[in-house]
Amino acid sequence: MTEEVILLDYWPSMFGVRTRIALEEKDIKFDYREQDLCNKSALLLEMNPVHKKIPVLIHNGKPVCESLIQVMYIDETWPGKNPLLPSDPYQRAQAKFWGYFIDKMVPGLAKLMWGAKFEEQEAGKEFIEMLKTVESELGDKTYFGGETCGYVDIALIGFYCWFDAFEKYGNFSIEAECPQIIAWAKRCVKRGSVAKSLPDSDKITKLVPEIKKKKGIE
Amino acid sequence: MTEEVILLDYWPSMFGVRTRIALEEKDIKFDYREQDLCNKSALLLEMNPVHKKIPVLIHNGKPVCESLIQVMYIDETWPGKNPLLPSDPYQRAQAKFWGYFIDKMVPGLAKLMWGAKFEEQEAGKEFIEMLKTVESELGDKTYFGGETCGYVDIALIGFYCWFDAFEKYGNFSIEAECPQIIAWAKRCVKRGSVAKSLPDSDKITKLVPEIKKKKGIE
Repeated sequence: MTEEVILLDYWPSMFGVRTRIALEEKDIKFDYREQDLCNKSALLLEMNPVHKKIPVLIHNGKPVCESLIQVMYIDETWPGKNPLLPSDPYQRAQAKFWGYFIDKMVPGLAKLMWGAKFEEQEAGKEFIEMLKTVESELGDKTYFGGETCGYVDIALIGFYCWFDAFEKYGNFSIEAECPQIIAWAKRCVKRGSVAKSLPDSDKITKLVPEIKKKKGIE
Repeated sequence: MTEEVILLDYWPSMFGVRTRIALEEKDIKFDYREQDLCNKSALLLEMNPVHKKIPVLIHNGKPVCESLIQVMYIDETWPGKNPLLPSDPYQRAQAKFWGYFIDKMVPGLAKLMWGAKFEEQEAGKEFIEMLKTVESELGDKTYFGGETCGYVDIALIGFYCWFDAFEKYGNFSIEAECPQIIAWAKRCVKRGSVAKSLPDSDKITKLVPEIKKKKGIE
């Protein structure tokens, strides 16, 4: 059966990048369709009627929403190559826990980037605290998945291309606070699937003032 | 091998109830240990060092945190009786999507119950809108899981015993707004696993002013 895999995405998305990497890890060819979030396509509205957000993975006409759910779906649908989640239920639950934890960093990051001026410092502090917690889970491992780049690595790496932007608005140095995370990210970027999928950090840093302008911030 | 299953929980928790139901559905005997959240036990702090929150499922000495992850873990560890998630990856992704959506109702509900007075009305409106979206997913089905009570049913039913409290502070009628949800909840309560696990609604309604007092609200 010919697989039809479409990804509705937006290039700077730290969520979309998860799904891109998971598909690359599995060697799945997909039709990447860049979305204009100011003028949402009929397909996006039809495929994600609840949230109307990217990324949406459309597999043989059927949509899967939420990036971490997409990563799990990809792993279950194409289980052969590069397993992303551990096969042991306990280890799998631990990986899901950390994926969930990483997603809990998002509301604070939204405040840091798009919130009121007075919220920035507090949100920045909270982010660093949470990142330190994530770093303690990484410890001395090569990847969160041990020797293999897996679900938790994919959940977090999309944030990396936003680190410069976070630092600029949060007034902190992630390398000074979480050196192991930076070393880990540099290892991840050496992987083909990640290198191919991760947006350019400079392009994001340049994009941020444009988004702020559009949102009427500053 | 003798299984040792411990649940650190607090009786009114709409999250803990999920794990209780999942264990009951699988006929797993467990040692329920009520926690005093004002004076957290050494075991709770050791088993959930990141969030220090209930529920914590401890299986043969190893902790699993986050109620929906616990439900998935229970289903994967004891797959035989009453499957909670669909076996098809696509259907499973859909169930996870709705579980995730239901969890997104929580910050708004926290505002409704424990937030500032001026936030209540907005939070209440948002809750009803989200519950209507969930109701549209239920449609005419007996359960979210079709003919079987599954993951999404378990994710949502814990909210039911809080409905009276939500209505009191939100100034809405859930039955008027979402009649199919109420009919569904009444069907769920007929199930042994749910009846046995769900806290008493009246007890929760009486508890709420006490919690507000402790939190210094009103």
